[in-house]
Amino acid sequence: MGKGLKITVIGGGSSYTPELIEGFIKRTAELPVEELYLVDIERGKEKLNITTELTKRMIAKVGLNTKVYQTLDRREAIKDSDFIITQIRVGGLKARASDERIPLKYNAIGQETTGAGGFAKALRTIPVILDICRDIEELAPKAWLINFTNPASIITEMVLRHTQVKVVGLCNVPIGMINNVAKILDVDSKRIRIDFAGLNHMVYGREIYLDGERVTSEVLTKLGEGASLTMKNIKDLQWDKDLIRSLGMLPCPYHRYFYMTDEMLEEEKNAGEGTRAEQVMEIEKELFKRYEDPNLQEKPPELEKRGGAYYSDAAVSLISAIYNDKGEIHTVNIRNNGAISGLADDVVVEVNAVVNREGLKPIAVGKLPIKIHGLVHAVKAYELLTVQAGISGDYEDALMALISHPLVPSIKAAKGILHDILYENKGYLPQFSKL
Amino acid sequence: MGKGLKITVIGGGSSYTPELIEGFIKRTAELPVEELYLVDIERGKEKLNITTELTKRMIAKVGLNTKVYQTLDRREAIKDSDFIITQIRVGGLKARASDERIPLKYNAIGQETTGAGGFAKALRTIPVILDICRDIEELAPKAWLINFTNPASIITEMVLRHTQVKVVGLCNVPIGMINNVAKILDVDSKRIRIDFAGLNHMVYGREIYLDGERVTSEVLTKLGEGASLTMKNIKDLQWDKDLIRSLGMLPCPYHRYFYMTDEMLEEEKNAGEGTRAEQVMEIEKELFKRYEDPNLQEKPPELEKRGGAYYSDAAVSLISAIYNDKGEIHTVNIRNNGAISGLADDVVVEVNAVVNREGLKPIAVGKLPIKIHGLVHAVKAYELLTVQAGISGDYEDALMALISHPLVPSIKAAKGILHDILYENKGYLPQFSKL
Amino acid sequence: MGKGLKITVIGGGSSYTPELIEGFIKRTAELPVEELYLVDIERGKEKLNITTELTKRMIAKVGLNTKVYQTLDRREAIKDSDFIITQIRVGGLKARASDERIPLKYNAIGQETTGAGGFAKALRTIPVILDICRDIEELAPKAWLINFTNPASIITEMVLRHTQVKVVGLCNVPIGMINNVAKILDVDSKRIRIDFAGLNHMVYGREIYLDGERVTSEVLTKLGEGASLTMKNIKDLQWDKDLIRSLGMLPCPYHRYFYMTDEMLEEEKNAGEGTRAEQVMEIEKELFKRYEDPNLQEKPPELEKRGGAYYSDAAVSLISAIYNDKGEIHTVNIRNNGAISGLADDVVVEVNAVVNREGLKPIAVGKLPIKIHGLVHAVKAYELLTVQAGISGDYEDALMALISHPLVPSIKAAKGILHDILYENKGYLPQFSKL
Amino acid sequence: MGKGLKITVIGGGSSYTPELIEGFIKRTAELPVEELYLVDIERGKEKLNITTELTKRMIAKVGLNTKVYQTLDRREAIKDSDFIITQIRVGGLKARASDERIPLKYNAIGQETTGAGGFAKALRTIPVILDICRDIEELAPKAWLINFTNPASIITEMVLRHTQVKVVGLCNVPIGMINNVAKILDVDSKRIRIDFAGLNHMVYGREIYLDGERVTSEVLTKLGEGASLTMKNIKDLQWDKDLIRSLGMLPCPYHRYFYMTDEMLEEEKNAGEGTRAEQVMEIEKELFKRYEDPNLQEKPPELEKRGGAYYSDAAVSLISAIYNDKGEIHTVNIRNNGAISGLADDVVVEVNAVVNREGLKPIAVGKLPIKIHGLVHAVKAYELLTVQAGISGDYEDALMALISHPLVPSIKAAKGILHDILYENKGYLPQFSKL
Repeated sequence: MGKGLKITVIGGGSSYTPELIEGFIKRTAELPVEELYLVDIERGKEKLNITTELTKRMIAKVGLNTKVYQTLDRREAIKDSDFIITQIRVGGLKARASDERIPLKYNAIGQETTGAGGFAKALRTIPVILDICRDIEELAPKAWLINFTNPASIITEMVLRHTQVKVVGLCNVPIGMINNVAKILDVDSKRIRIDFAGLNHMVYGREIYLDGERVTSEVLTKLGEGASLTMKNIKDLQWDKDLIRSLGMLPCPYHRYFYMTDEMLEEEKNAGEGTRAEQVMEIEKELFKRYEDPNLQEKPPELEKRGGAYYSDAAVSLISAIYNDKGEIHTVNIRNNGAISGLADDVVVEVNAVVNREGLKPIAVGKLPIKIHGLVHAVKAYELLTVQAGISGDYEDALMALISHPLVPSIKAAKGILHDILYENKGYLPQFSKL
Repeated sequence: MGKGLKITVIGGGSSYTPELIEGFIKRTAELPVEELYLVDIERGKEKLNITTELTKRMIAKVGLNTKVYQTLDRREAIKDSDFIITQIRVGGLKARASDERIPLKYNAIGQETTGAGGFAKALRTIPVILDICRDIEELAPKAWLINFTNPASIITEMVLRHTQVKVVGLCNVPIGMINNVAKILDVDSKRIRIDFAGLNHMVYGREIYLDGERVTSEVLTKLGEGASLTMKNIKDLQWDKDLIRSLGMLPCPYHRYFYMTDEMLEEEKNAGEGTRAEQVMEIEKELFKRYEDPNLQEKPPELEKRGGAYYSDAAVSLISAIYNDKGEIHTVNIRNNGAISGLADDVVVEVNAVVNREGLKPIAVGKLPIKIHGLVHAVKAYELLTVQAGISGDYEDALMALISHPLVPSIKAAKGILHDILYENKGYLPQFSKL
Repeated sequence: MGKGLKITVIGGGSSYTPELIEGFIKRTAELPVEELYLVDIERGKEKLNITTELTKRMIAKVGLNTKVYQTLDRREAIKDSDFIITQIRVGGLKARASDERIPLKYNAIGQETTGAGGFAKALRTIPVILDICRDIEELAPKAWLINFTNPASIITEMVLRHTQVKVVGLCNVPIGMINNVAKILDVDSKRIRIDFAGLNHMVYGREIYLDGERVTSEVLTKLGEGASLTMKNIKDLQWDKDLIRSLGMLPCPYHRYFYMTDEMLEEEKNAGEGTRAEQVMEIEKELFKRYEDPNLQEKPPELEKRGGAYYSDAAVSLISAIYNDKGEIHTVNIRNNGAISGLADDVVVEVNAVVNREGLKPIAVGKLPIKIHGLVHAVKAYELLTVQAGISGDYEDALMALISHPLVPSIKAAKGILHDILYENKGYLPQFSKL
Repeated sequence: MGKGLKITVIGGGSSYTPELIEGFIKRTAELPVEELYLVDIERGKEKLNITTELTKRMIAKVGLNTKVYQTLDRREAIKDSDFIITQIRVGGLKARASDERIPLKYNAIGQETTGAGGFAKALRTIPVILDICRDIEELAPKAWLINFTNPASIITEMVLRHTQVKVVGLCNVPIGMINNVAKILDVDSKRIRIDFAGLNHMVYGREIYLDGERVTSEVLTKLGEGASLTMKNIKDLQWDKDLIRSLGMLPCPYHRYFYMTDEMLEEEKNAGEGTRAEQVMEIEKELFKRYEDPNLQEKPPELEKRGGAYYSDAAVSLISAIYNDKGEIHTVNIRNNGAISGLADDVVVEVNAVVNREGLKPIAVGKLPIKIHGLVHAVKAYELLTVQAGISGDYEDALMALISHPLVPSIKAAKGILHDILYENKGYLPQFSKL
């Protein structure tokens, strides 16, 4: 890495961008960003313009000399980048609404990452990220790809299997869990450490420490008694006390889809079709109105309603840990490499990892307890099959992936969902064009 | 092993007994049974008397000098036995009706082995089989235990983990699949061979051979086009053509509960509560009426309606293969020992094994294809947790087992089912007496 | 497979050929050989002529109508063959003498398979077998390659890794061990069965059965007390009683090189350079003189001195088991596929396998006892590195392979041996031509 | 952990003690040692007195108020300790001389850890450490045992398998390798980081980083060209350039015993019997003379000749990392837990680990390259067998362990060595008393 960094944000027109910029600004002392490229596609041009202008004002306010560029030319942006962040949403929120709606027709969870909705999203996203990776392989082979694009586990798995790109999959769930535990214990979140192990949106906190002392059962008791542990975009159903005690581990908010499937399904149905997507569209509209205000020179507090809290922390602090060779522990999606015994070495898992300039190395976890082993293997199998289907574009691969999803109740449902997904996403699934 | 064999049938009053006896009679030339003990409990006395008398008539008819005994003293029967067959049903068909009914209240499959009903059955059966094994360890340590008692996978797993008894778990499903394939191809079943791999009632035919030539895809095509492949006790829903093609393997009839969950659930509900158990009660009543006929000297054809076809073949031909050191291949439930890579060495799997006097050795299968890997791991995890709960009698263990069952839709359902199981089976769950 | 079989013997001019022919003749009833091709290279033309004429006389004597061909055109012979047997010796006995001599200069065991001599042999043989396999892939893709060519483990490993050919590696050591055990117990060898596990020339008999009953410790005691268990080409040093008892398994004769390294080295040195090769050259000369006798119409008893006893049994009975879909157990070198837990699925091991028309399936062995685990892993690592070196022709790969050999005492020795091997085998190592 | 720490040094009369004390003194600001117990046995009383007095002077000089105790009552010292350091040498340097001498008679490397000498040492040490652990289990169950006692790998393995004690095995080799690399590159050692993986005294540096950039091949080239990388107690034979290039990893100094066996054996023989032990006895005598000097108030520079350099750094900085919950990376001997794929989860390995108050977690390494896989597995098998023999006291276990040692050339040698070890160590091997 040279003196100043070149950082590229693909999906720069996202409403999340100001938080990311705030993250860079907070770390000015340690992270010398020379060039910042915000890239988007034609359709996102207008939004890109708004986020770029806001970015420039934010940078100007604190007196930095980072050069900010906006472009629709992805290759220009990628060339010689040090870090590339992908925060895209193929098909936009409209596609998300469809993703969330289709499965509900067939009594399947629609959720856009964990649910069958995530399957549709994966199929749309895989060809786009694959193209981006081909550009990175050619134009910035040493760059790190920090992937936020959901379903993060599947996308990272695909990049790892089908490209040469150095990739890390990132998510705000682990940080959110740490912050929630801090809230439960009423302490500063810096004093909390959690042994994470599992998959993205399927990660367990196997032990919780406060100042290095185990407090797992104390936290679980409080959680069972009603302490909240959730995220903006997941209905905050109370955890069952007995489940938490039997589990003996901290579930992530998304685990509700697996352990409380029927209630979550009920929720999704009651909420109306594609509700979360629609709410988000509303929030986004307001956010961009706010971003346009030429007097706004910092991240507006309204952004926190968006559900992406701690995102900036996760991404920028990871970049800084790599750049500054910090040896910090981050919770990331990377190649298992034996960290979770019993899962193949070459699959992507979400675990704690040591982050240095040379890369990320997972901390060995050993065997998963049998109580979570089955579910983790089942979901990982679904993810691998989805990567395969997303690349091959074979109907049978896609069907096999969907029927392997623990939340898809039958082959009939799987076929219905797949039919509707293929139909409604026609323009976004070039790999399935032969069907 | 001495000259003549001592064989003990625990649950000798079962309606299946005549088929077993027929099996021994067919193999008289190779299997010298000197003593045959039929054992049952007080409550089954009357039935035991009927089956014993029929047995004696069957034996007399063919002019054998096998001595047939009936007894309620299990220890007397076990002492110095060479082979012990367990075909018990703890709680009888009444308990089965309850097992099948309870889960339906909570939208879960009730089926008595694969469904949540099988969980109840396992909890009832584990203490009884454990007691039997303690007797075997003491009184007949060299005996082979041939276990038919369902859920066979869980029971065999328990025996393997918690006793010193030499056990084989047996099931008629693999033989049934071979016979059905033979019917589909219209050939003699002896010409068919299948590479089985998986778990009991969750076994896949990975390759199918006719006279040593692969015919897997031919069979799967016919199956997808409507050829039947089922068993008496499972509703014969037509397999989905696309599922079969995507899978590329032969599913077992019980796989319907996993791949067609909602339709099977609908079936179970429409059939009324505990229907299969009630049908069976009716069939049994008639069977025993038939057995009582002093002119009956052979297995009556009506028995085939009962759903246990090929049972005799599986059990007696296994015994003969062991006794005669045959080196034959049988499909059995035994210690994995690496046969399925990726599953622990010490779990029970259902695979082809070479059978000799010295014991059974599984044929190595390698890694399971990822399309079935997830489901097999999930079900095996449920089975291991159930063994643990069945031994410990801990509420939390039981809850964790149930919520890990792929066919139990939520913690709410799991708690409801568990509550009802514990309540309705009070007299049969000594291990849970502390609750 | 059609009506009559086409069988091709590459290295048909070998002195072993009459034994192979005898094997086919013995199995005429079950194995309809229509065409038998004996192939050799220009240099072996004369010997090929002699063995072909003898073969024709042997066939004529028993009145078979198998057509026997001799040819130097390998591709003509391979085309549409059902089974191809490779019994070649690249470089002939002269190269063997060099292989055995070189390591002794550096205090390393020279033995032509297990010793460092086997490394030289592997380097010479890999390119030739690879060429043969390319022909098979093109001209007889359904053919089985039965490989006897040593070092059988390395050659089979290479074929499995670098070609599409269906290969089985065969060796007479397991049959020899069974026969020796039979001799020790003074019973017919058909009554003996051994659980074999390990690598070629590094195979252990984990349990020994007589009529299906365990007799392992009885046999080991006798072996410790001086019963012989060896082969023609290995000096019959008495096994140490305490080693045998500690081991608790039956070692193969070649294990002497590992457990009695210094004594075997002393033996080899005392015997003079390349002695075994020279003895064999003498025996061969006499054998061929005998084969030329136009009155000779069967395998002459002198062949047994040659050291390849049971070879015919191993090869022809394997071919018959495949062709006749027998389901027999043979001890072979095939893909591990989980049979030995802890070794990778894709390495070649020597284990018992079920043999059917569809192929060979290893019987799962589970984990190796820790007492042999280390040595087996060390030798397998050497074999894998040798395959790599034999393909790549890289000096560093070759050095790494040699220094990983447990019987090569130091890098100095490894470099000396490698230097001499490369020098003395110049004409036979095209892959190293860039050095 | 309370306010002030109680630290116990078993083997407090060791000549290494002043370095350890220096380590604590250097870290006074972060590590509040309230009580320091130096324990030894009757025979070491005099030395213990000398080191305790020196310790008191060292502590006094810097004005600390740590209370220093000397005692022969191990249990008093262990009670409620926070950290216990074992630096014992059962049988003293006299036994070491015997350990080093015996194997040479049989052409085996004698070295006291890696060689067959280490086997004798392990047998003597296992019963003593086991007793210490029983005391810790009873009197200080929360204490960390920092074990320096050699052979560290075997001792740590034994503690992990046969006790409940929280143990870390520590060695100065990894720090030495880092310092040597720093010297080779002429940079400060803090800028060097190495990915360590393997076993104690058999550890490889898989990648080397300078300021987070890979410099592995640069370092290896220099090493091949003659740069030194060794330790006081190992003859500094130049590494072979081709070996280093082929290996592509940084070997540890002890690897010379495996890769340069014959030269090292020659060295050991030329050096005379038990030379290193005798040299050390001489050095120790002088050291203690020096320690007695009442004017000496700090670690004397002569200690560095002793060969234990960096020992203090390893131990005290590890204690501080645990106590202060630092999240630092240390290279330690701990439970594998999947860190090295392919080795069992429950064996001890030497790897980088994250150190926090809650304990140590190994960083996942994935599969070892096949070039080192065989040797690592072979040595680990020897270690496991040695633990077994050290506990059981069975002759056969001991013989099997020794013959499994890659540096023991034959069963004859193994039996000779074992005979002499048992004879010369009679008073120290209670577990073998039945022989």
